[in-house]
Amino acid sequence: METRTAIKQRRTIRLFQQKPVSDELLRELVDAARVTSCGGNNQRLRFVVARMQPLVNDILAQTAWGRHVTPRRTPVAGETGPAAFIALLGPAQSGPILHADAGAAIQSIQLAATELGLGCCWLASVNRANVAPMLNLDDKVEILYLVAVGYPAEAPVSEDVPAGADLKYYLDDANRLHVPKLELDAVSRWL
Amino acid sequence: METRTAIKQRRTIRLFQQKPVSDELLRELVDAARVTSCGGNNQRLRFVVARMQPLVNDILAQTAWGRHVTPRRTPVAGETGPAAFIALLGPAQSGPILHADAGAAIQSIQLAATELGLGCCWLASVNRANVAPMLNLDDKVEILYLVAVGYPAEAPVSEDVPAGADLKYYLDDANRLHVPKLELDAVSRWL
Repeated sequence: METRTAIKQRRTIRLFQQKPVSDELLRELVDAARVTSCGGNNQRLRFVVARMQPLVNDILAQTAWGRHVTPRRTPVAGETGPAAFIALLGPAQSGPILHADAGAAIQSIQLAATELGLGCCWLASVNRANVAPMLNLDDKVEILYLVAVGYPAEAPVSEDVPAGADLKYYLDDANRLHVPKLELDAVSRWL
Repeated sequence: METRTAIKQRRTIRLFQQKPVSDELLRELVDAARVTSCGGNNQRLRFVVARMQPLVNDILAQTAWGRHVTPRRTPVAGETGPAAFIALLGPAQSGPILHADAGAAIQSIQLAATELGLGCCWLASVNRANVAPMLNLDDKVEILYLVAVGYPAEAPVSEDVPAGADLKYYLDDANRLHVPKLELDAVSRWL
């Protein structure tokens, strides 16, 4: 898939088919994150891939999803849950650069997933204190973000909107998620 | 260009051809950033594109580049300088989520640039107090990062290295930059 096509077609996925994702594909996702640019080439991010049960469902229970449409985009274990989680770890009390590194790495994961026919949800609402022991973490590292991964069971759409528009995503009568995105001239200035 | 090819071929570029980048292409880059996922779909990032002279060179003078190989990857205005800068702005005193949003948006910019034959350098070492008035910013916003953009005049390469290896990028005898990247098993764990 062309790169800019993947960038435009990528949508956050919160409902998944109950179909496993092979380790080969999960490795492709982590490899995309691995080669992403990072501050000073310091490569301080680490990745834990959780794809075994009951671990995946245990992690799922510690996450919150799609707050503007709760509970209709909260995946249900065994029905609409993800196949795996990729946890992005940084040193304890990571500063802004690590968060920027994580954002860049997650975008690589999401774009590689789009090309591979997979869907992702980048999760910041995570009960980190409960998930850390599930991943056997010590107190030298912290969970920055989780990325849920699976085969999509929904097809959200995006619409460009002008400055000042309501940016909350919403569900239509057909249970399709709509994501408003500010148009280019509303977010950029040229000098 | 295939998405995972762009992810793997993307390299930070610090020396540029002295050739302008069209507004059409610069708009493609900002558009890639615009549609990138962000926390809560809040879209709080803003973008200022500086591509006129002497502004670009004035900004260049406020940035620091490639500290492991200083000064050999510090671009020189009129010789190896970038054609434009894209400034990513957030609300004053932005927290970690905005930095994560910025990292994701920058990765989209870098990958779209790779597909378009352009090169980028993501810059965090910026004298923000000096650059803010050049971009006509008030104190409600802050510069998170700059991305320098231009046609590449260097071709860095990356090599996978095992855990514990030196991660400093370096120049070889032919003035080519080498970027060590930790191999997959050194940065990931599987559960």
